[in-house]
Amino acid sequence: MAVLFERVAIAGVGLIGGSLALAAKRAGLFGHVVGLGRGEANLRLARDRGVIDEFTHDPVSAARGADLLFLAVPVRALAPVVRACATALAPDAVVTDAGSVKGAILAAVEGELPPGVAFVGAHPIAGGEQSGAAHADAGIFRGQVCVLTPGAAATPAATAKVRALWEGVGMQVVEMDARRHDEILARVSHLPHVLAYALMNAIADDTAFTFAGGSFRDFTRIAASPADVWRDIFLANRVALRTALAEVRDAVDAFDRALAANDEASLVALIEAARARKRRCDDGGA
Amino acid sequence: MAVLFERVAIAGVGLIGGSLALAAKRAGLFGHVVGLGRGEANLRLARDRGVIDEFTHDPVSAARGADLLFLAVPVRALAPVVRACATALAPDAVVTDAGSVKGAILAAVEGELPPGVAFVGAHPIAGGEQSGAAHADAGIFRGQVCVLTPGAAATPAATAKVRALWEGVGMQVVEMDARRHDEILARVSHLPHVLAYALMNAIADDTAFTFAGGSFRDFTRIAASPADVWRDIFLANRVALRTALAEVRDAVDAFDRALAANDEASLVALIEAARARKRRCDDGGA
Repeated sequence: MAVLFERVAIAGVGLIGGSLALAAKRAGLFGHVVGLGRGEANLRLARDRGVIDEFTHDPVSAARGADLLFLAVPVRALAPVVRACATALAPDAVVTDAGSVKGAILAAVEGELPPGVAFVGAHPIAGGEQSGAAHADAGIFRGQVCVLTPGAAATPAATAKVRALWEGVGMQVVEMDARRHDEILARVSHLPHVLAYALMNAIADDTAFTFAGGSFRDFTRIAASPADVWRDIFLANRVALRTALAEVRDAVDAFDRALAANDEASLVALIEAARARKRRCDDGGA
Repeated sequence: MAVLFERVAIAGVGLIGGSLALAAKRAGLFGHVVGLGRGEANLRLARDRGVIDEFTHDPVSAARGADLLFLAVPVRALAPVVRACATALAPDAVVTDAGSVKGAILAAVEGELPPGVAFVGAHPIAGGEQSGAAHADAGIFRGQVCVLTPGAAATPAATAKVRALWEGVGMQVVEMDARRHDEILARVSHLPHVLAYALMNAIADDTAFTFAGGSFRDFTRIAASPADVWRDIFLANRVALRTALAEVRDAVDAFDRALAANDEASLVALIEAARARKRRCDDGGA
């Protein structure tokens, strides 16, 4: 494939930033890649592994002449990074990200961009609990879905380049409105994280953990997810998340009412409805 | 090891019943094993795989002269099976089970036993979503925890034999009061199942499933669990489960309040508390 971006600045060379750099280099989509970050050891490791070509702690050096700025930092760090990089970018640069919330990021980032620089929000739905360049893996995107939420200032050309990038690393790209993205992700990602954290907090006595089986460990795997990342996501998507919380509370209350009434038929109906959705989910959604 | 039980009747030759038969035969703990069930194809498969020596659909034939009756059927089927088998058992037979709820089973089963026959409730915390003798696996118990809840009618000798059986297939055996077992399992098993089912029911639009990542799939894996099994467990443990539901509702509300107030510090404190418990859980409990 032809090089899409000659000079790339990657802010945050963690699991996602590092994996995209690796995958895009391997696919011939990136020319020179500069890593921008704070952690010296992580950046050095990324360079030594060939994830990036060089690194810096200085946003202006990283962004100088870059035709792509890829933001792979926690949600609240995005706007400050864009602000610090903006004027050094190439005149027709494209900015994209990998944030799990799109509306708040769009609102925060678009105001920081100079004319001619387009922001095309992206959410590659990939990754895991691991973090850091040490876990960068070119294969994590393949076959997964990436949502693009181009904002008002995104040109069709910029959106097409960002689409080509994510498709080039093997993702299935879907464009949608940022608000709709946030409503969906509130339900299939942010809500399960709240429930997993809440379940851990509801278990007052550690002795119980001795009797936790494999299903509990799978269910609470995401309760290990880092606080800074999820604080930002929860707050940036708080309106949709609170709506989703109210919906799951209603769904839990339906079980509680059936239990209170010893109502077998309702209980079976609730379980079978959930199982039917689970089967449709495992079949890949609608 | 010496044979613990010469003639064993296994009611329900599914994943747990079949796996125990395989493991105990391999360890030399079981003599002749008779499978009792309804599904002809499953029983035939179990016999052909060597999981059981013979099978029958008749409780009296299965139980005749048996010195162990192992109950691996859904919770509500236990008492009827015991009733049908009781008079045919050997005079000093031992009855045990693998149910996920212990108080209700103890209450239902003890009344059905003839004098001299002891019931020692057991809950091997092992298994998975798979079912049927086809998935029987002698290795599923090894290194896992088995809770014994001997009732009033259990003699020390009967409890010792049941302990030797579960230890003989590699389990770590813990004895406790049935009520305490049910309170703990309500939290680490029954509650997560309700939450997983409820989450599926809260997602009204199947399109969302297209955007579900690996964490959602892990979190909702147990939402595929069968309705008959979980209806019985939920109802048999409804008091403890409703208490646990109220506790998790409080824990979710704490997140909701922090979101409503845009309260970063509280949100971080809630997440960090959950993560600390998750770490202690992964370290194996207290």
